[in-house]
Amino acid sequence: MASPSSDEVSASTLQLPWFVAGSQALGIGCVVLVGIWMGHYRGGFSWNRDELEFNVHPLCMILGMVFLYGDAIMVYRIFRQESKKCIKIVHAVIHLGALLITIIGFVAVFHFHDAKNIPNLYSLHSWLGLTTVVMFGLQWIIGFLIFLYPGGLAALRAWYLPLHTFFGLAIFTLAIASSLTGMTEKLLFSLNKSYKDMPVEAMLANSLGLLLVAFSVVVGYIVTRPEWKRPSQAEEEALSMHFHRITRGDDEDD
Amino acid sequence: MASPSSDEVSASTLQLPWFVAGSQALGIGCVVLVGIWMGHYRGGFSWNRDELEFNVHPLCMILGMVFLYGDAIMVYRIFRQESKKCIKIVHAVIHLGALLITIIGFVAVFHFHDAKNIPNLYSLHSWLGLTTVVMFGLQWIIGFLIFLYPGGLAALRAWYLPLHTFFGLAIFTLAIASSLTGMTEKLLFSLNKSYKDMPVEAMLANSLGLLLVAFSVVVGYIVTRPEWKRPSQAEEEALSMHFHRITRGDDEDD
Repeated sequence: MASPSSDEVSASTLQLPWFVAGSQALGIGCVVLVGIWMGHYRGGFSWNRDELEFNVHPLCMILGMVFLYGDAIMVYRIFRQESKKCIKIVHAVIHLGALLITIIGFVAVFHFHDAKNIPNLYSLHSWLGLTTVVMFGLQWIIGFLIFLYPGGLAALRAWYLPLHTFFGLAIFTLAIASSLTGMTEKLLFSLNKSYKDMPVEAMLANSLGLLLVAFSVVVGYIVTRPEWKRPSQAEEEALSMHFHRITRGDDEDD
Repeated sequence: MASPSSDEVSASTLQLPWFVAGSQALGIGCVVLVGIWMGHYRGGFSWNRDELEFNVHPLCMILGMVFLYGDAIMVYRIFRQESKKCIKIVHAVIHLGALLITIIGFVAVFHFHDAKNIPNLYSLHSWLGLTTVVMFGLQWIIGFLIFLYPGGLAALRAWYLPLHTFFGLAIFTLAIASSLTGMTEKLLFSLNKSYKDMPVEAMLANSLGLLLVAFSVVVGYIVTRPEWKRPSQAEEEALSMHFHRITRGDDEDD
């Protein structure tokens, strides 16, 4: 596909805030729905190695691996005027927050399994979830070493950037898929045969599933639409040089 | 990101066949594993509105919505020398095959539910699956009308192409997520408490889940890597004009 023209870019950039606002409404909707599901229908939260500690797991996963992770990958699109360096740090810090909340969610489910003598890591959900979190951790460490740690080679950065972007979105999608399998498990374990009768809890959880999909589709669209990409480093430097010249009041020729 | 240079394109194009071969090994692996799971561990297939008719459902979904769908979206990358018109038809025909197999898979599960008096469309899996198939059907019809039906407007095609590409990949990813939730349901319904003991069937199904994810990641990488995109229509026409001139033996100047 040809690169979009500057007219196309500026026309479509006006739509971006609406898409970002929509993504935030969907993402906050996901966190609120999982909070109501676990907080109201499943009895609330605790940290006492009991049934209620399990409830911390879905809340943390959707807050960390879905909502914060999704927001972290959108920061380059949302903050278009700020310096790349500054946005890189925001991106890494939100991801670090997401990773820490994810680890708390992991600990919660291991505590619950140990207390109830349920084996860990036997289900497809657990295999997918573990794969997602390990890939996320590796992606964070490699990203930090290559893009933020001083002394990174420009050639290495340029080679790794498309892989980082591709796997960033792949891990996000895998987090959504893992959440959907975990929700299926939880619905079958806790509602069992009454799931078929579609109680309010089932409707709420199914709706949460669709909302997660909608959030991931909107985030995916925002981060992949070519017109919404930031100008490349070279273009950015040229613009900043130009701005520097204008503010110094120099001629174009100097 | 800047467009890749022609050196980068030709160097990376040499890797493409290896990625395509890998995708086919993974995709065929998925179809074989679901065949063994349903054919061997779940008793085989039938079309008699019984337990065995259910087994047609996962086989058709993975063959149609995953393997054939994945291959259909890769044809523009795999057949780089053939005319765009020809590849469009191949793309539409493979997708039509995928859609028909998917509909057979849908009928199988509705037959099974009706025979067993199980309500339809109550679970998160069914909501996700229905959303996926409805979106796929709409995408096929809209794509056919805009890209293949004679008299389509070039401006409309240019506007719709990025949306068609984005939603094509989103529907594929949703098909993978739907499959993973369906597999989780099937494992909990059929193995129930013995799932925790990790029998061979559980290991096989969990491995199928990881293989589905690996297939989708490789297909996603092949269709999104910028160096592997086909040259744009304008570049293609220029190349074909040039070729036409050479074969006619005319001078460059005529």
